Amino acid sequence: MTLLVQKYGGTSVASIERIKAVAEKVAASSKVGNQLVVVLSAMSGVTNKLLGWAHQVQAEPSAREMDVLLSTGEQTTIALLAMALEELGCPARSYTGGQVKVLTDGAHTKARIIDIEQKNIRKDLDNGKVVIVAGFQGVNEAGEITTLGRGGSDTTAVALAAVLNADECQIFTDVDGVYTTDPRVVENAKRLDNVTFEEMLEMSSLGAKVLQIRSVEFANKYNVPLRVLSSFEEGPGTFIGSEDASMMEMPLISGIAFTSDEAKLSILGVPDIPGMAYQVFGPISAAGIEVDVIVQNVGNDQTNDITFTVQRKDTAKASKILQAIAKEIKAEEVQVDDKVAKLSLVGVGMRSHAGIASRMFETLANESINIQLITTSEIKISIVIEEKYLELAVRALHDAFELGDTETNSKA
Amino acid sequence: MTLLVQKYGGTSVASIERIKAVAEKVAASSKVGNQLVVVLSAMSGVTNKLLGWAHQVQAEPSAREMDVLLSTGEQTTIALLAMALEELGCPARSYTGGQVKVLTDGAHTKARIIDIEQKNIRKDLDNGKVVIVAGFQGVNEAGEITTLGRGGSDTTAVALAAVLNADECQIFTDVDGVYTTDPRVVENAKRLDNVTFEEMLEMSSLGAKVLQIRSVEFANKYNVPLRVLSSFEEGPGTFIGSEDASMMEMPLISGIAFTSDEAKLSILGVPDIPGMAYQVFGPISAAGIEVDVIVQNVGNDQTNDITFTVQRKDTAKASKILQAIAKEIKAEEVQVDDKVAKLSLVGVGMRSHAGIASRMFETLANESINIQLITTSEIKISIVIEEKYLELAVRALHDAFELGDTETNSKA
Repeated sequence: MTLLVQKYGGTSVASIERIKAVAEKVAASSKVGNQLVVVLSAMSGVTNKLLGWAHQVQAEPSAREMDVLLSTGEQTTIALLAMALEELGCPARSYTGGQVKVLTDGAHTKARIIDIEQKNIRKDLDNGKVVIVAGFQGVNEAGEITTLGRGGSDTTAVALAAVLNADECQIFTDVDGVYTTDPRVVENAKRLDNVTFEEMLEMSSLGAKVLQIRSVEFANKYNVPLRVLSSFEEGPGTFIGSEDASMMEMPLISGIAFTSDEAKLSILGVPDIPGMAYQVFGPISAAGIEVDVIVQNVGNDQTNDITFTVQRKDTAKASKILQAIAKEIKAEEVQVDDKVAKLSLVGVGMRSHAGIASRMFETLANESINIQLITTSEIKISIVIEEKYLELAVRALHDAFELGDTETNSKA
Repeated sequence: MTLLVQKYGGTSVASIERIKAVAEKVAASSKVGNQLVVVLSAMSGVTNKLLGWAHQVQAEPSAREMDVLLSTGEQTTIALLAMALEELGCPARSYTGGQVKVLTDGAHTKARIIDIEQKNIRKDLDNGKVVIVAGFQGVNEAGEITTLGRGGSDTTAVALAAVLNADECQIFTDVDGVYTTDPRVVENAKRLDNVTFEEMLEMSSLGAKVLQIRSVEFANKYNVPLRVLSSFEEGPGTFIGSEDASMMEMPLISGIAFTSDEAKLSILGVPDIPGMAYQVFGPISAAGIEVDVIVQNVGNDQTNDITFTVQRKDTAKASKILQAIAKEIKAEEVQVDDKVAKLSLVGVGMRSHAGIASRMFETLANESINIQLITTSEIKISIVIEEKYLELAVRALHDAFELGDTETNSKA
């Protein structure tokens, strides 16, 4: 018998009608003989409403009470789905995180899962019941309600699949899979049948926001077969697994990820002595600013230039901090550019093939696009360019690496 | 140190502003040295919204899942109040029914409290924290979420006060106490400083819907001192306690309760043989119809007449059932009148005083109001009259028994 863990996100359960539609899908899958554990998010919008209330009541809401508050969202949807399934004659049973129980550490609002009890779930599955679990939430040793942070329902699903040794963990969302790049930018972007965990990690952290990065890490670690599918249409979606399974047919490049809300900051003429990088990034990190790309080239004489990118909204804050640091460490200058975008080629295939980078740079040169920064990892080449060239660059590279669907042709 | 259990109902926590106002009240009471356990309902309207959703999803929603769903309402308000108190510098901690824990039987949607654990509450109180408990909810032995039924938050409050041996259980609501009768009908109706549990039981079941009757029974059984107060204005409210404490100054009559949405049904010529009453009320009860007053007078010859009242909405259903019964048991006739109202004089004082009934009947005779039914208990005389005379009757009796506030005069 096949055991599936299915996760439905906030847009999939956003209304009573949609909850009924999810029930139809689940009941159909149960009817053909699958054992099913269903993980749900809160109705979309609910978590934000509750957050808004909390901030109206307390300037910096207590994390413990925030978790008590936020966990009501999934508790609402699991009960409604259980009712909808029973209405269809499909026996079902809902569990809050505390009831399962999903044991976490005590880090309220960003807890990590330590263990999940199987006992009740197994018993219900053996009795032919669909088990419905509230995503995003757990309890700590003391019985306090905890939550896993944004997107935590994906993590709940993957963790359940790992513990139960499920045949597949299916993440239902509002897109029908992982694409070679954003179809809004490149018309003939193609849905990928397979990607590896590593590729997915690079893709999701780079802006292709299909899956929560943490849940992909988790799936990778415990080797949980993942699949991303649409809640709203039929289709095979995209399978995400370990490399071995599908290496034979791996293309050089799987996709192009990009993000356009970045700012680039450089500190020039940093003395070339140990500890400088820490002196720069210590205060930035302490201010809660997330740094994305960091580039430091070989220095000239006794100084180095360090460049990094941050989210555009953090530009002013980061710039101010950097000015102060520059004064302190006697750096020469600070440069800020908040009109940049980042683009990354991702593919496990590039590991064993030279020439990917040069083809990438050649393609951009042909379009007269200047490359400002370059960083690479084993399966990824990222560049930072002027923002206005982003879409042109994505389309040109998508064509150059023949990522498109051959049935329709890109207009670019 | 004084230990108070305070309960705030749905209208008292209906918005963020009102939750903040409750926090102010609680913090002030804590500041003067009281130990406080606060029980909350869901925001008014929320429970009905959730019920509506459940009925959209399932024709007869699963009781287990209904409890998972409904219990989210109080979980939301307790977290928000805890935040609001901490914002005021008043340490607080929220508990769901399961976290306390409030142990109940397994009767979902109408569970009864078996026991309440004190350990965590005592520890928090000793550490100077305000303890906030979700009303209306508990868990059974198996860890399933249960709810106590409508108005269950009052029961939670009284049960907590009993277990903790609290000095007083204060029920904050949208009225400032218990009145001699409905102030909308009698202008100089007077707030009572004290009533006994027994009077309160008669009053609340008869339409003066200030307190859930079940919570009054509970308070009576465990001798918990109760007080009803307004959430919105200052004032001493009404104290509800056992008779001994205040018997000396007990008036003959405490108040006049009434209800106007009743229907009266009679079955005439019922054979005077054993088992007839059961043959009549068995099917009525099986149909889920609640019967209020039942009157059977001494029979003439070999037959009896039985009359009873039901809620007006049940008139058609009850009438149909009664017609069938009449045929079956060969009764003579069924009469239905859905234009009746019930009025009751309540007071422990009447136990020791003759003449209350006659003064009551004389007053009504003076107003030419015909009495259709009469029933009495130790501390209550109830009559059924034609509905259109109800307000006149209430005013006349309120004056006749001098229940009014002497500062303003009744217009009746």
